[in-house]
Amino acid sequence: MINLIGYYTTQFGELWDKSLFDLVEEAINGVLKQTQLSNKQIDAVFFGNMLAGVLGNNLHSTSRISEILKVNIPIFRTEAACASGGAAFNLAKSYLEANSNKNVLVIGAEKMTDYSPEETITGLSAAASGEEQEAGLTFPGLYAMMANFYLEKYHYTEENLAYVSVKNHFHGSLNEKAHFRKKISVEDVLKSAYVAHPLKVLDSSPISDGAAAVILTNNRDLINKQKKSVSVLASEVVTDTISLKERKNLDEILATKNASNIAFEKAKIRRRDISVAEVHDCFSIAEILAMEDLGFWKKGEAGEKIKELSTKFGNGGSLIVNTSGGLKAAGHPVGATGIKQIGEVFLQLTGQAENRQVKNVKYGLAHNVGGSGGTAVVTILAI
Amino acid sequence: MINLIGYYTTQFGELWDKSLFDLVEEAINGVLKQTQLSNKQIDAVFFGNMLAGVLGNNLHSTSRISEILKVNIPIFRTEAACASGGAAFNLAKSYLEANSNKNVLVIGAEKMTDYSPEETITGLSAAASGEEQEAGLTFPGLYAMMANFYLEKYHYTEENLAYVSVKNHFHGSLNEKAHFRKKISVEDVLKSAYVAHPLKVLDSSPISDGAAAVILTNNRDLINKQKKSVSVLASEVVTDTISLKERKNLDEILATKNASNIAFEKAKIRRRDISVAEVHDCFSIAEILAMEDLGFWKKGEAGEKIKELSTKFGNGGSLIVNTSGGLKAAGHPVGATGIKQIGEVFLQLTGQAENRQVKNVKYGLAHNVGGSGGTAVVTILAI
Repeated sequence: MINLIGYYTTQFGELWDKSLFDLVEEAINGVLKQTQLSNKQIDAVFFGNMLAGVLGNNLHSTSRISEILKVNIPIFRTEAACASGGAAFNLAKSYLEANSNKNVLVIGAEKMTDYSPEETITGLSAAASGEEQEAGLTFPGLYAMMANFYLEKYHYTEENLAYVSVKNHFHGSLNEKAHFRKKISVEDVLKSAYVAHPLKVLDSSPISDGAAAVILTNNRDLINKQKKSVSVLASEVVTDTISLKERKNLDEILATKNASNIAFEKAKIRRRDISVAEVHDCFSIAEILAMEDLGFWKKGEAGEKIKELSTKFGNGGSLIVNTSGGLKAAGHPVGATGIKQIGEVFLQLTGQAENRQVKNVKYGLAHNVGGSGGTAVVTILAI
Repeated sequence: MINLIGYYTTQFGELWDKSLFDLVEEAINGVLKQTQLSNKQIDAVFFGNMLAGVLGNNLHSTSRISEILKVNIPIFRTEAACASGGAAFNLAKSYLEANSNKNVLVIGAEKMTDYSPEETITGLSAAASGEEQEAGLTFPGLYAMMANFYLEKYHYTEENLAYVSVKNHFHGSLNEKAHFRKKISVEDVLKSAYVAHPLKVLDSSPISDGAAAVILTNNRDLINKQKKSVSVLASEVVTDTISLKERKNLDEILATKNASNIAFEKAKIRRRDISVAEVHDCFSIAEILAMEDLGFWKKGEAGEKIKELSTKFGNGGSLIVNTSGGLKAAGHPVGATGIKQIGEVFLQLTGQAENRQVKNVKYGLAHNVGGSGGTAVVTILAI
């Protein structure tokens, strides 16, 4: 049995007075305090981060974390573009499956706003194929191609996409750690400037700073002692081609579909058992595709279903999506995102989600994507 | 039981006509061919690489490898500076401990020679602390501080260090995949230009390109079927402070000492059982410290012992060190180094080391270091 026993996230946003490792340190201290564990009780650390090398010339963060935590233990950094946090969580789970009676700290962090937009955009494009980079295809461009394909194939308009952002901004307004707390309307989204047609500013997640941390354990005594604890039923990583042109279908993320199928099989639950999900909405179209590829809605159906806003908190739906505000409103400090998603599900499962607490939550899912779908991680948690 | 059943390495050197992923692809195809496995028989991949983001703006290599290998499986990249390869191997071992009947591909690769020396040096310095970077302390400088401290404390001279390079260049002359195949003399080393006093050009490993891959399995049928197979008795990762100034002793690498102690305890063998070792000789002083910290020689003794050249192939010693040529002569394509070290031990254990084959080898050790000792990985293999 592997349990998640604590979660801490820093504020997400433009945190110009904090360095990457200031944020990492805050997340470490926060989660240790919450679980009442000392640094000496941590047996291993997994760190998810994408851009510290490219943007800050900071590599070997494993050793930096050893210095912060004041321990000499195994520490690993993993990078899988925007899925770095989810991948770190998955490796931590493997570590616990291989070792008994251990406590593992999982951290995700990113520092993105201290650099020029050109530097950040170039860094982010490192997650795309060489050919795509050379063609000037940044991530808005890649997701715009998927959006155009989807809208045309299923006869939707930009308005259908807008509901994702409206919902997630409403959720962000309820989350004090979110980057954006302003509610927006469908009209606001449609009036916002194009980034890459049909995607507009308000279809897109922001560039953010932030760090998030969780503690996983398979120590039974500790699990019994902790008041807030959830089981990790599944965590699955699947990869796919880095180039969009090598994919068979532009209206699905195969990595998400496969990871989801394997995760539900391992968790031995049905889609309808999930009451809360954090899905990877780097762009509005990404949540649309995710809802279908995760198996919550049928292929081609999400464009219509999203308009009902059944996945919005307070509307009485059976599945509420992105209560944290998602990447769109809570922000997207790349390496931190996968951990924040899992952390938000933890808060919901343990009744700590305050003004956005969904009722009667037994199962939750987190879904983290790297690049244009080259990596997907699906995690299922249960109370 | 976890076994290593195949190893392939590309040429190490200045490979200007090959990209990072050309090298990765060659290593993948090489190791698959050798083990007669198909891509569909690989269940997971672990990739060790340090600089592809900083130098080539290539991140999300997990997805690139999915495209090369034409599979949709879990693929992970890990980075721990110069210990990235060793760390990837360690994670692969954890994965197998957590999952039965699986075959895992572990790749290490680095492309370093297409860039200006300034770019490469800046990239490598990303493995040091921010303060050290700002002070202009590149890796030769950091290891020079350790060398000065060691030579003064134990009353040795630069000549003592020179024997490491002489030995490893002799070994490199026997390895056709080595970056340098020229034998050198103590006089050659002493006459070479200073890089950071007391370390000279011929005390230092080069900037190289290369990729290496191994396949690990816990599938008993496959282990029984493979002619060349060795057991992984231990693989231990230990971290320490990134800053040299935070360490208690400048004449030891604590991470190496701790990783070695844990590894020998797990392997249930003694130091004297080891007949071949690949140790991390990024600079001559590094092999001197490693021989002591790994417990082969007593603290302060290596400066004298190395002059006997008992660890040189052909001298009849009971422990031969760096038969590949080490980082010094075989070359140091950072991410590939940790895998090449393990691969060289595999060749020795399975009698495939040709003109440098040590006799009666039952146990071998590989030792991979990140930065100035912020990470160490010790792996013990047995036939």
